[in-house]
Amino acid sequence: MTTASPRKGLLIKADPIAAQFRDEVKQALAQLSCRPKLVGILATTSAPSKSYAEFTRKQCEELGFDFVLKTTGAAASPELGEGDGVEEAIIEANEDESIHGIMVYFPIFGAQQDHYLQQVVSPFKDVEGLHFKFHYNLYHNIRFIEPKSLLGSVATPIAPTELETEEPPAGTVKSIIPCTPLAIVKSLEFTGVYNRILPYGDRAYGKTITVINRSEVVGRPLAALLANDGARVMSVDIDSIQEYTKRPRVASNPSSSESMTAQRYHPRHIVHPSNLTLHECLAISDVVISAVPSPTYKIKTEWLKDGCICVNVASDKNFEKDVRDKASIYIPAVGKVTIFMLLRNLLRLQQYQQV
Amino acid sequence: MTTASPRKGLLIKADPIAAQFRDEVKQALAQLSCRPKLVGILATTSAPSKSYAEFTRKQCEELGFDFVLKTTGAAASPELGEGDGVEEAIIEANEDESIHGIMVYFPIFGAQQDHYLQQVVSPFKDVEGLHFKFHYNLYHNIRFIEPKSLLGSVATPIAPTELETEEPPAGTVKSIIPCTPLAIVKSLEFTGVYNRILPYGDRAYGKTITVINRSEVVGRPLAALLANDGARVMSVDIDSIQEYTKRPRVASNPSSSESMTAQRYHPRHIVHPSNLTLHECLAISDVVISAVPSPTYKIKTEWLKDGCICVNVASDKNFEKDVRDKASIYIPAVGKVTIFMLLRNLLRLQQYQQV
Repeated sequence: MTTASPRKGLLIKADPIAAQFRDEVKQALAQLSCRPKLVGILATTSAPSKSYAEFTRKQCEELGFDFVLKTTGAAASPELGEGDGVEEAIIEANEDESIHGIMVYFPIFGAQQDHYLQQVVSPFKDVEGLHFKFHYNLYHNIRFIEPKSLLGSVATPIAPTELETEEPPAGTVKSIIPCTPLAIVKSLEFTGVYNRILPYGDRAYGKTITVINRSEVVGRPLAALLANDGARVMSVDIDSIQEYTKRPRVASNPSSSESMTAQRYHPRHIVHPSNLTLHECLAISDVVISAVPSPTYKIKTEWLKDGCICVNVASDKNFEKDVRDKASIYIPAVGKVTIFMLLRNLLRLQQYQQV
Repeated sequence: MTTASPRKGLLIKADPIAAQFRDEVKQALAQLSCRPKLVGILATTSAPSKSYAEFTRKQCEELGFDFVLKTTGAAASPELGEGDGVEEAIIEANEDESIHGIMVYFPIFGAQQDHYLQQVVSPFKDVEGLHFKFHYNLYHNIRFIEPKSLLGSVATPIAPTELETEEPPAGTVKSIIPCTPLAIVKSLEFTGVYNRILPYGDRAYGKTITVINRSEVVGRPLAALLANDGARVMSVDIDSIQEYTKRPRVASNPSSSESMTAQRYHPRHIVHPSNLTLHECLAISDVVISAVPSPTYKIKTEWLKDGCICVNVASDKNFEKDVRDKASIYIPAVGKVTIFMLLRNLLRLQQYQQV
């Protein structure tokens, strides 16, 4: 504790970050003639899912969205199994024209079968952005799409977006981004990690960011998003550390031809295995984001770079209590931002459905 | 051992089962003007993947298919990481019109990211049948599709097939079925589990089948296939036992309204939680199929129903050495059948591509 700063870093809770999106969503809603309707599908007796469903309802009602909670399986009747009827409920909501958005309270069956269910949700109603098409666009840095492409084959080659502007070109709309990674990006924008003086699509240039977790729901899409926005991202999981970047890599070896000759960065991130240890990644990271679902996993404060920004995304606390002795900013949770990303997606999808 | 039959059950290896498909594939190939070309994508240094790639090559060359092995990542160069470049290799093969089928040697990154990659393979070239669209059709008992639907939205509702004939109606083709579950079904047909006197689509009626494993790659699609074909399937995994059936359930409780009033079976299977134990499932099962990836997992021979048929799908042996003391037929492996299912799918997809 002898090296601790005399002054602690800022603690930023999600509320002030969420506030700007609450206003944005409220204003957009006020201009609509038809209230968007969200259906939540609850198929298990899981307490966190149940309380998240109640939280969704409360937020929707407060803001003026229609919300219907559809229970099925064990959530509807003790005689039914966990998850019973959930696929049928999704298909019914896909086909119901009065419904504009669908959210399913996962986990239900486990990662594999849940992933199957995520593909059953129509991409036109997928407020969580979990459909393969949206992941594909994200990984390929395809930011603007024709709404019709949500009907088309995902295997159609589309060029990554060369960005000049934040606004979609005529005839296109923004692709939907998965809620949790997007909430993290918005939190980083709020804390100044994204530099708005830089051109859109490259505003994280110059930042080194460690992301601990490489799941398909949070860590990997987040690493890709940040790298597509210009950051150098160290993606850490149990087995390996990878570097996500769209620029030529910083060469430890000057004979590396790539870094010497490449003049321009790739239109989307590429991934390299890294030789760095977690300790070494943390030592050079301006931002550390952790989403490890374990109550015992803790990032050592002493390993952090002085003045870095730390974001905890796990339901457990992945940072030590004294994290603000090193971090300039610490965000302990982003869930309250995530719900607004979901409602923003709902507003967009309602528009896309009209095309 | 006092209750063991004096005569052991039959040991049936995959070769005689594969033989009929070898002939079928050879004949179909002889009638084509253009040799189908399969590309195998190997992105890891995994020894089983490497030897499976060599096995694919050998089978293709022997039968007269063109086979190209594309190596990438650690399989191509020790300087590259496991899986590097695999998505790009898939996209290139999707776009290459000279290639009719793509197979990717999994596992690469682990279940979640591998599932993402399975969606990147164009369904028109997905010889393994791992694309979501094929799984969706399988789970919904949609056997015949318009080839164009492979381009369309997966969320479009399609009615399950009411079967009168094995032949697709005009303008439709058969949906692709994942190779391993299909190889198991074909092995059951070979051993007489499917009764060809019964109408197509209901030939497993009257059979009770236990399937141990409920992964999205083998166990769950297999349980659905068998139940859609009329069987009563007990689907067993670590956490739970479920019953897959398209008929009203056998009621233990005569007040169960469903079994008393339903006159006709569902067009596709439905799933119920089961109260039976594994022991009880095995005691009533005519067929036991096991795919548990563990060298220590063993099904107790004494629990098997006398005269049942046992199929081992795992790379480890899930049955005890004395399994044939109880089983009338034991199939220790189906891998040699699976490769022919893959080549049959290749021949079909080549046709679908021409539509």
